[in-house]
Amino acid sequence: MELTNWLEKRVRLSPEKTALVFHDKQETFVEVYDAVQKVAGKLGGFGVRQGAYVALLGRNDRDTFLMIHALQQIGARTVFLNNRLTATEIVFQIQDARVACCFYADEFAPKMVSLDVEANSFSSVMSAPVLDIPLVPNFAMDEVASVMYTSGTTGKPKGVMQTFGNHWWSATGSMLNLGLEASDSWLCAVPIFHISGLSILMRSVIYGIPVYLEEHFDARRTDALLRNGEVTMISVVTTMVERLLDVFQEPYHPHFRCMLLGGGPASQSLLEACFENGIPLVQSFGMTETASQIVTLPPEEALQKIGSAGKALFPAEVKIGEHDEILLKGPSIMAGYLHNEKATEGAFDADGWFQTGDIGYIDEDGFLFVLERRSDLIISGGENVYPTEIEHVLLEHPSVAEVAVVATPSEKWGEVPVAFVVTKTGIESQSLLTFCEQRLAKFKIPQQFYFLEKLPKTASQKVQRHRLKERLH
Amino acid sequence: MELTNWLEKRVRLSPEKTALVFHDKQETFVEVYDAVQKVAGKLGGFGVRQGAYVALLGRNDRDTFLMIHALQQIGARTVFLNNRLTATEIVFQIQDARVACCFYADEFAPKMVSLDVEANSFSSVMSAPVLDIPLVPNFAMDEVASVMYTSGTTGKPKGVMQTFGNHWWSATGSMLNLGLEASDSWLCAVPIFHISGLSILMRSVIYGIPVYLEEHFDARRTDALLRNGEVTMISVVTTMVERLLDVFQEPYHPHFRCMLLGGGPASQSLLEACFENGIPLVQSFGMTETASQIVTLPPEEALQKIGSAGKALFPAEVKIGEHDEILLKGPSIMAGYLHNEKATEGAFDADGWFQTGDIGYIDEDGFLFVLERRSDLIISGGENVYPTEIEHVLLEHPSVAEVAVVATPSEKWGEVPVAFVVTKTGIESQSLLTFCEQRLAKFKIPQQFYFLEKLPKTASQKVQRHRLKERLH
Repeated sequence: MELTNWLEKRVRLSPEKTALVFHDKQETFVEVYDAVQKVAGKLGGFGVRQGAYVALLGRNDRDTFLMIHALQQIGARTVFLNNRLTATEIVFQIQDARVACCFYADEFAPKMVSLDVEANSFSSVMSAPVLDIPLVPNFAMDEVASVMYTSGTTGKPKGVMQTFGNHWWSATGSMLNLGLEASDSWLCAVPIFHISGLSILMRSVIYGIPVYLEEHFDARRTDALLRNGEVTMISVVTTMVERLLDVFQEPYHPHFRCMLLGGGPASQSLLEACFENGIPLVQSFGMTETASQIVTLPPEEALQKIGSAGKALFPAEVKIGEHDEILLKGPSIMAGYLHNEKATEGAFDADGWFQTGDIGYIDEDGFLFVLERRSDLIISGGENVYPTEIEHVLLEHPSVAEVAVVATPSEKWGEVPVAFVVTKTGIESQSLLTFCEQRLAKFKIPQQFYFLEKLPKTASQKVQRHRLKERLH
Repeated sequence: MELTNWLEKRVRLSPEKTALVFHDKQETFVEVYDAVQKVAGKLGGFGVRQGAYVALLGRNDRDTFLMIHALQQIGARTVFLNNRLTATEIVFQIQDARVACCFYADEFAPKMVSLDVEANSFSSVMSAPVLDIPLVPNFAMDEVASVMYTSGTTGKPKGVMQTFGNHWWSATGSMLNLGLEASDSWLCAVPIFHISGLSILMRSVIYGIPVYLEEHFDARRTDALLRNGEVTMISVVTTMVERLLDVFQEPYHPHFRCMLLGGGPASQSLLEACFENGIPLVQSFGMTETASQIVTLPPEEALQKIGSAGKALFPAEVKIGEHDEILLKGPSIMAGYLHNEKATEGAFDADGWFQTGDIGYIDEDGFLFVLERRSDLIISGGENVYPTEIEHVLLEHPSVAEVAVVATPSEKWGEVPVAFVVTKTGIESQSLLTFCEQRLAKFKIPQQFYFLEKLPKTASQKVQRHRLKERLH
């Protein structure tokens, strides 16, 4: 099945609606489309063709935004490179994806080394002549639109193939849960090379609403946008919420209706702080493989089910499989891993359920609670120890800013938990130990506290637990 | 592709939301689902099985509402019988659809005669024991959910097969145009055996919003519901709008946000009267074959493009083909005519565009204007004469309540227009003639005026022009 090229269709439906707000400059869909067509014409001179895998190393700016749409218009399959990767990591992904060519924002030139394929800077594209090349009239639902390598907290990164259908069903599934109002707009301060950001761009075109694209997340600037009523939705991860709460003084505008939280569970105290301040936080669960949120807490349940990721969106299903693993089904789930049939097969069970590798449970009312990455689970003396449970306890301590708990081998218990802590003020291990002893069973208490300036994180702000574990060796 | 059984999924997502308001009694989705499951169990005793065609002759009431959902839960394909049909017409449709059995609301027993298949009254179903029969876990998008015979203004009625996918894409396409708000509810005062009504039931389940089901359209009662803020959307045809304007005194509630007009174009004066009174009229174009509206005027354009049906919804396309025929494409368009491959083939052109049989044009901004059924076009002395143009002129006359213009054969011109008029007050033909002469080119002026008490109409309030033509012979 195919639909008309979405951007072209959107331009015909609502040419004069705002599509993009970047650096406070507004552009309508017809203006964006004109610019996108020009960029597509320029790309024509670089040999970009329909069906080719093309790597894109960009940032949250207008040029990258235009490149993303231009590549879609040509029918290329965009391999999104995370701009926090090292040159070595980039080489791996480019080789693994067998890309035809690369395009990069000029500042990232130092990362474009040792490549076997042609790489061109955005400035060389933008200054090229506009060729007359064919744009795709239709988007086929089963055609690969984007490839994103999973951040790889364990194992080698794999290229997740997201089809147009995946993006479509994600956008409409979200709409059935969160609604769609004429005045809606979505603030994108998460990376657009990540599914959390790209999905906002896709929703913008499908819904016909503006993207407020931010180069970087700036808590004060975002706070101002949420207070002045210009944006109605924002996608966030927990660290962004924390920073927003740090600068929070006045209530957000009543038009602001959804702070969509992804990228891992938040602590009880953080959730409560949001609700106390009237912040419409909507918890969710999703991953690159599900083309963003697939389980979301309906806004009307947000307070009753604090800590839950919610229920599977209308087109999707969630269930708990063996070893408490969270299993998912639905049309927003990826086509598979690029050039990696074995990994694709391994990702789905015999009945076609996608195996998330996350552990959780579903309560008696059907709400999903995500506990842990399966690989993060600590098994200590035969007991399941959930790092997040310990982290949530430590986060209640007034001096603790951030914390990550991981396993370290133990002769006696197999594994035991240890904690890496970022503090707000100086504090002794003993104080944390006492704090834990009052709140946690003995086998859950970290055997060691390590103090860090900051935790190692992925571009999408997930703590890289494997890097913490490496420190223990 | 398949999704979880929609009603079951909706119940899990929002069990306590209102699903149905009938006779001022509210029922939640979980209450409706319980009742539907019981009815499904009762139907089990009557041999209703998955995949069977089952005829349903109901009315706008709770029992029919439950039967529709119960048949879907069992996986039967419901053949919707129009309750204004004669016994003879019903026999034709039942035979043509090769139904396994029929169910009818008790009051329609007299219409259930000369049938070759078993027919059971609703009361016999409702008093039957509840059997334990399997309900379908999933709805396949390409599975036939409903069959509706086109009202057949010309030729023999054909059974339009509407799949679950057709209903899904219609509902989501509409949502992308009209939005979806948490407080939405849809008033259904159009027949639920017609796509205008059934599509409201489908949207209710997909969106999770209440249906306010009305037994009959009552202008005063509807006026009250639109004023008190309980309903936010309503589907109407032009005669309903006229009757609402007749009783209109106070503005509707600000929560009321969409009066979706289908079933044929409205006159300029009617549209203007709505806008003068702040009524949020949304014009649209659709048919049984498109699972309701497929071209709709975006609310923000309603005033700029008075008289236009709008633009094709996001998942659809419209274009003008040979002889100015309106052609449509999109996933809400029917699978075909039941047991009638020849008619199905004839309905689509070589490129898969559905040929509506309606004539229209698309203006320079991309808005569709529907002129006429192709079969209604009058060709007089080589000139195209559009009955609706003449009708709209006559409706401006203060004494004219309703009018229909049809062709009558003429030796000199091939065809000439004649008018059937329903008057508000007594009036002479000469006065109408003079009125037309001042406003219409000579070849458009009706050669004869016939005065009727009322115009013959289909169940969906479309004028039956063929019956008017028959009077001329």
